[in-house]
Amino acid sequence: MNPMQSNRLEQVREQLKAQKMDCLALIPGFNMRYLTGLDFSLFERAFIMFVQADEAQEPVLVIPELEAANWRHESPMPAHLLPWSDKTGPEDAMRQAASMLKGVETLGVEYLRMRVMERELVGRFLPGVRVVRGEPVISHLRLHKDAAEIACHRKAVQICESALAEVLSTFLPGAETERQICNRLTGAILNRGGEVTPVEPLVLSGANSASPHGRSGERRVVQGDILLFDFVTTAGGYYADITRTFFVGDPPDEKMRVVYSAVKAANEAGRAAVRPGVACQEVDRAARQVLTDARLGPHFIHRTGHGLGLDVHEEPGIVEGNEMRLEEGMVFTIEPGAYLEGWGGIRIEDDVVVTRDGCESITTFNRELQVVGSI
Amino acid sequence: MNPMQSNRLEQVREQLKAQKMDCLALIPGFNMRYLTGLDFSLFERAFIMFVQADEAQEPVLVIPELEAANWRHESPMPAHLLPWSDKTGPEDAMRQAASMLKGVETLGVEYLRMRVMERELVGRFLPGVRVVRGEPVISHLRLHKDAAEIACHRKAVQICESALAEVLSTFLPGAETERQICNRLTGAILNRGGEVTPVEPLVLSGANSASPHGRSGERRVVQGDILLFDFVTTAGGYYADITRTFFVGDPPDEKMRVVYSAVKAANEAGRAAVRPGVACQEVDRAARQVLTDARLGPHFIHRTGHGLGLDVHEEPGIVEGNEMRLEEGMVFTIEPGAYLEGWGGIRIEDDVVVTRDGCESITTFNRELQVVGSI
Repeated sequence: MNPMQSNRLEQVREQLKAQKMDCLALIPGFNMRYLTGLDFSLFERAFIMFVQADEAQEPVLVIPELEAANWRHESPMPAHLLPWSDKTGPEDAMRQAASMLKGVETLGVEYLRMRVMERELVGRFLPGVRVVRGEPVISHLRLHKDAAEIACHRKAVQICESALAEVLSTFLPGAETERQICNRLTGAILNRGGEVTPVEPLVLSGANSASPHGRSGERRVVQGDILLFDFVTTAGGYYADITRTFFVGDPPDEKMRVVYSAVKAANEAGRAAVRPGVACQEVDRAARQVLTDARLGPHFIHRTGHGLGLDVHEEPGIVEGNEMRLEEGMVFTIEPGAYLEGWGGIRIEDDVVVTRDGCESITTFNRELQVVGSI
Repeated sequence: MNPMQSNRLEQVREQLKAQKMDCLALIPGFNMRYLTGLDFSLFERAFIMFVQADEAQEPVLVIPELEAANWRHESPMPAHLLPWSDKTGPEDAMRQAASMLKGVETLGVEYLRMRVMERELVGRFLPGVRVVRGEPVISHLRLHKDAAEIACHRKAVQICESALAEVLSTFLPGAETERQICNRLTGAILNRGGEVTPVEPLVLSGANSASPHGRSGERRVVQGDILLFDFVTTAGGYYADITRTFFVGDPPDEKMRVVYSAVKAANEAGRAAVRPGVACQEVDRAARQVLTDARLGPHFIHRTGHGLGLDVHEEPGIVEGNEMRLEEGMVFTIEPGAYLEGWGGIRIEDDVVVTRDGCESITTFNRELQVVGSI
């Protein structure tokens, strides 16, 4: 058995006991990847891994035949494989799984991952079992990144920053649409060994940048535009997520200077607030206060940040109401922004790791207001 | 209101009535995209669109504040927007939604999309409602592609085939790993305007090709290898999904010739069986019989094909047990394969559309056994 996976299996079992669950059910996704080291895709076929708190019981996998070969090939840990084929369906495998899970009374499932389809199978074949939110079992472990995980984050950040620098170096106002710049950025990431993820890069210009979750389109980027990049990649599965906002054409106008400088100060205040023992919501408040003081509070319409890891949004949320205390090894974004409909938006996003006595920003790309595309 | 979306909303309501549901709940994904024309990403925030069969009731959206701006900007149809913020959570919005859905007794939800999180919200705020499988409402509509949709499929196929040709044209044995070839393929797709999807290209070589759902790795592709490409892109959201398998080094050995020729014949038999009125399982049987006759039946370990559309796997499944009759405008894959552990696998995958009296293969890339990388 892979020693990393053996260790994580042991930790999951400890957490199950601590959180009073007998068993955890995982479907393909980040939690399964964290535990097994294997990255299965989620399709329409039922694939459920049951991990019992009891060390004497090997994990039980209801697994599509197609995926069983991958499991056997990598064999991350001893397990009962119950493969099923498209011809027979998963019912027999679920029935066998149920007989192996006889002692289970409380089952944790992934509320943000498991679908109604798997939930119905669980309900049908494990009818007496109490189903509870299972995420805390693994998110507790995933919350603290070890040195190897942080090295992956760092590599992903380096890829992003170098790719962005390349894209900017050849940018010319009026020559490209958002979409074309976006494709160049993806190419630059791939060429540096970055992994493609389901999260599309955002290249937003002009008034489009006012939408925090906008989409790169056919708009041509011209003089006088705001130009916002928000994009990710992964290295070894771990995310970098960076936003920088630029001005096209010299000099930036007054409104741009004022809003930019407030967002930059909010980003700095957020990062400065990060250290072990501080509640997540305090970091949000520190960043938000700066924008409120600049009378931009109502235009900062999202939380200050989110955890990063195998998933692009994970714990800890840097948001009002989250009283979780920061601890060494947590990795998350600090990404205040101000969005003025019809004009545009500015966001500056860094990825930080909590250190023993403060905070290190893994992202180091210049945060000063920069003009791009001037000749 | 966008006329396309107006028409689809009307059809959904007709289907709801025909299938005896009062309401359909959609979360971000392909069904929501089909209905609204908007492509929202699924994050951890609850975003549920309720569409009632009753035409007098506008759709009700429990929607994260961040996404509400996108909706308002595109405004695909009149709707009750109930935005919620990270600060307040979705409960109030759900409560308001419930009061607007008073008459609903039967609610269709997406079994393969909706998560336990949204399912719990529905259960909590609509406690008296009977929840049923909602996919058939929209999959029935999505099953038949109109000319505009087929044009998108066609464009996606052209991008894939042209990208593959480019990658092969500069391939040299021993020079690249699977991963490097995979990155070149992604770059070639992007440069042709193809969209990046969550489905990673598979570039599998040697014995790795024996795993139908393998993953491109650090293995260097050398003389004597099987080299399998299985990859997708989308155009206007619609998928192409193509597999071709090559031999590296001249001449192909005897085993390669024999297995390849059986898979190719199975692919031809599958396509030849496609016409309106034929049951999906008959197409599977036609392809499978060829491999069984070649004593490769046990090595063809998956169904013959799957529907293609906005999703990469949708109805109709070309599989034993599916008695659905083919109709004009259905689009799906024909992708028989044979997988011999330790040796490798061969698969030839085409995308076909059912025509008035038969079948057209949208993919036309050469299906003959080809040697690549010879000098």
